Amino acid sequence: MELNRDAPYVVGVDLGGTNVRAAVTDRAGAIKGAGRATSLAHDGVAKTVGQILAAADEAMREAGIDKAQVAGLGIGVPGVIEPKEGVVVWAPNFYENGEQYRNTPFAGPLRERAGMPVFMGNDANVAALGEFRFGAGRDVCTLVMLTLGTGIGGGIILDGKLWTGATGGAGEIGHIIVAAGGRGWAAAFGSLESMGQISAITERAARKICEARQSRLAETVDYDWRLLTPKLIADAAAEGDPIALETFEETGYYIGLGIASMVNLLNPEMVVVGGGVAQAGDLILDPIRRSARANAIKSLIDSCPIVGAELGDDAGILGGVSLVLDALEG
Amino acid sequence: MELNRDAPYVVGVDLGGTNVRAAVTDRAGAIKGAGRATSLAHDGVAKTVGQILAAADEAMREAGIDKAQVAGLGIGVPGVIEPKEGVVVWAPNFYENGEQYRNTPFAGPLRERAGMPVFMGNDANVAALGEFRFGAGRDVCTLVMLTLGTGIGGGIILDGKLWTGATGGAGEIGHIIVAAGGRGWAAAFGSLESMGQISAITERAARKICEARQSRLAETVDYDWRLLTPKLIADAAAEGDPIALETFEETGYYIGLGIASMVNLLNPEMVVVGGGVAQAGDLILDPIRRSARANAIKSLIDSCPIVGAELGDDAGILGGVSLVLDALEG
Repeated sequence: MELNRDAPYVVGVDLGGTNVRAAVTDRAGAIKGAGRATSLAHDGVAKTVGQILAAADEAMREAGIDKAQVAGLGIGVPGVIEPKEGVVVWAPNFYENGEQYRNTPFAGPLRERAGMPVFMGNDANVAALGEFRFGAGRDVCTLVMLTLGTGIGGGIILDGKLWTGATGGAGEIGHIIVAAGGRGWAAAFGSLESMGQISAITERAARKICEARQSRLAETVDYDWRLLTPKLIADAAAEGDPIALETFEETGYYIGLGIASMVNLLNPEMVVVGGGVAQAGDLILDPIRRSARANAIKSLIDSCPIVGAELGDDAGILGGVSLVLDALEG
Repeated sequence: MELNRDAPYVVGVDLGGTNVRAAVTDRAGAIKGAGRATSLAHDGVAKTVGQILAAADEAMREAGIDKAQVAGLGIGVPGVIEPKEGVVVWAPNFYENGEQYRNTPFAGPLRERAGMPVFMGNDANVAALGEFRFGAGRDVCTLVMLTLGTGIGGGIILDGKLWTGATGGAGEIGHIIVAAGGRGWAAAFGSLESMGQISAITERAARKICEARQSRLAETVDYDWRLLTPKLIADAAAEGDPIALETFEETGYYIGLGIASMVNLLNPEMVVVGGGVAQAGDLILDPIRRSARANAIKSLIDSCPIVGAELGDDAGILGGVSLVLDALEG
């Protein structure tokens, strides 16, 4: 399907395990209309594709824009992606006939029913593209982005291009190992994800609560550490609660080690930190920065600020838009 | 200085802290003549440049090749290099007026006296280029190379090009962190270098000797662990000595963690392991492979063999040659 090079608009889609969000933007990334649907992630490719189209149609309707005015659709998918063939190599949260997606053609079915070119990438990679083109990284050429949440993902932009690796699997930032023999299971023992994901953060605070340390955070959850969330910990840290502050210090230490590794390896101009956990702002970013400074080569970290993401929930959508714009410019 | 695009020969130089080696090759990398000199690393830039030229002249003389037939000179320098400006940002083993090189112009003085274009890179980066073009990596586009020795260095080739980063400092593979809180001092605590360098290997074996474990290796050095070398440990491991085998297992574990990190991050087609320690062959490579397999994402490590370097001591020289050939082709 030919890319409509003269079309003034682009559709960006952020596919999550629960919801799919879409937007129509102009070529400068200004959102003209938005749509949303449930992902129906357990109901097979055809149903999920239908939901994506429903969200995209809603966005186009809201914008008053016709399909003929759209150059293409870019989409971030949470899983291992082979972008050239448009295949989902593995997506643990999406099911076809009761089985997780494995080597599942996805861009093709979507393209056929959308009636426009489709570009696909890993969701965290695509969010990095969004921050690179429209967000915190708009003034640099080379950056690493991390998204801190239930898992840890990210993307690597080198000289203006998303680095996807030899087989499309690059940028698995959560899977670099920073603490040999450390916490882990789903991701490797001692991996950045295992040491810095939400469950690691709440586990750290939970242990301190169970050590019966004096703490407002402990009182807030009435010693039921199952109620802990990064948001509650951040609120307590903002009020100076010692175990909340320590939890962020320790978490920032490990995340900073991962960033130090990437700075030493890739010498980027900037590291962007996004995802839900990053909403704690400097409470988490400062410990991260301190750890990266302490553990990276000085000349490399001196030239590489660590900044918060700017696009929030829109990074994925605008990254999808970027996939199409990259193709238009490429 | 203009690159002589029609010249059939190239000079490659490997500058070390003790010796400088040079060779003249044709454009296919066949060595036509070789030269060598001491580096006079403590005697200032002018003296060291003189020694480089002496080695290069000897190589050209041996080959019976005139300077006019040479397209350019490529050189690997052990330190932090700014390749575009030809400046040594920092080289701890080289001195000018009694001080370590810091932001020391180097390619310029060399170019002036050599009377030919000069291309410079970090020595481990340049060795990676050599293995990429002429050695173990000649059939792939994207690889990571590690050199295991007194320190751990390396280089990253992405889509056929050496990745040097935003400021020329990329590829500091020894400085990624794999074991939070681990061994270290010169390089960061728990860095790949600190955990896998020669002193870490001999230290592991020394501790086991001091635990009075039954071992031929212990007898070989008569319990004087200061005499331990990687070669002695490799010889003992080859004969099945348990503490020598354990030493390589434990070392391979940490090096494999570093490789797993790079495979998960960059998705290369191949990892090449060189340097003196790699001469132990599968005794060290098998534990490395096992650790990388156990800790990397399966689909990424499945498509990424870990192989020994092929060029031995010539990787640096042929990497220097590659710098010139890259410029000729670029």
